[in-house]
Amino acid sequence: MTGKAYYLEDFCVGQTIRSIAYSVSSEEIIDYARVWDPQPFHTDEEAARASVFGGLTACSSHIFAMFSIISQSWENGGKAQAIAGLGFDALRMVKPVYAGDVLRCLSTTVEVRRSRSKPDRGIVRADCRLVNQHGETVFTLTSTFMIKSRS
Amino acid sequence: MTGKAYYLEDFCVGQTIRSIAYSVSSEEIIDYARVWDPQPFHTDEEAARASVFGGLTACSSHIFAMFSIISQSWENGGKAQAIAGLGFDALRMVKPVYAGDVLRCLSTTVEVRRSRSKPDRGIVRADCRLVNQHGETVFTLTSTFMIKSRS
Repeated sequence: MTGKAYYLEDFCVGQTIRSIAYSVSSEEIIDYARVWDPQPFHTDEEAARASVFGGLTACSSHIFAMFSIISQSWENGGKAQAIAGLGFDALRMVKPVYAGDVLRCLSTTVEVRRSRSKPDRGIVRADCRLVNQHGETVFTLTSTFMIKSRS
Repeated sequence: MTGKAYYLEDFCVGQTIRSIAYSVSSEEIIDYARVWDPQPFHTDEEAARASVFGGLTACSSHIFAMFSIISQSWENGGKAQAIAGLGFDALRMVKPVYAGDVLRCLSTTVEVRRSRSKPDRGIVRADCRLVNQHGETVFTLTSTFMIKSRS
């Protein structure tokens, strides 16, 4: 299955796709937050240590941006032949993401259906989560996307 | 109401909060996408013109990052005394966001409730949308957050 192109037919309910590991650096947290969420506990290590979080944490839109990249970087090298993202539901920041964390995305397929009007494509829905190096789930959402069918 | 701090008591169901205008530049689209979603129709003007979009468009996580900033920049200068974001639901990319677009966020309060266990705070839920210079809704989501109460 390594490196293969995944079409609609390659998704089945219950399968879980695992991503590569992604290391979150303090430089990346600070660089991102300086532009998109310049609060001291996202941009300043000392202020972050003194905050309720006790350390530098990634802002919400940074976590979503990391999810967007990590969720497409599959450990087996596979690549979904997606046509378009249709939306995201139930997006939750469950725990803080700290500098030094190593994240993986686990995506479990919960629905697969072929389009009736355009059978060359279909819809996949997946429950996705980012898990850190302690096995803790830090971020969850449900992703729905349109994908090409092979036949 | 200009510049005021908004507590739980200042939110009422049906009110709509309007943001400042935000101009989306091609430089910002390209800079963001180079890091977070390096596909030619997000990073290259010529490739974008030849694509199905017909022009440079912002990637999904960039739209979410812009929403995060715009939704907190109220036209009346007000600032929600939020404690924490609790999550986002029904996130939809309704139309592409193009270079040169001018976006505003409109946030309509749909639920306000005080915490029973901790009455110094409460929960606000708002249906939010980004609207472009043509009056078209390009992005929607529902935001739920915890906020301080005044009393």
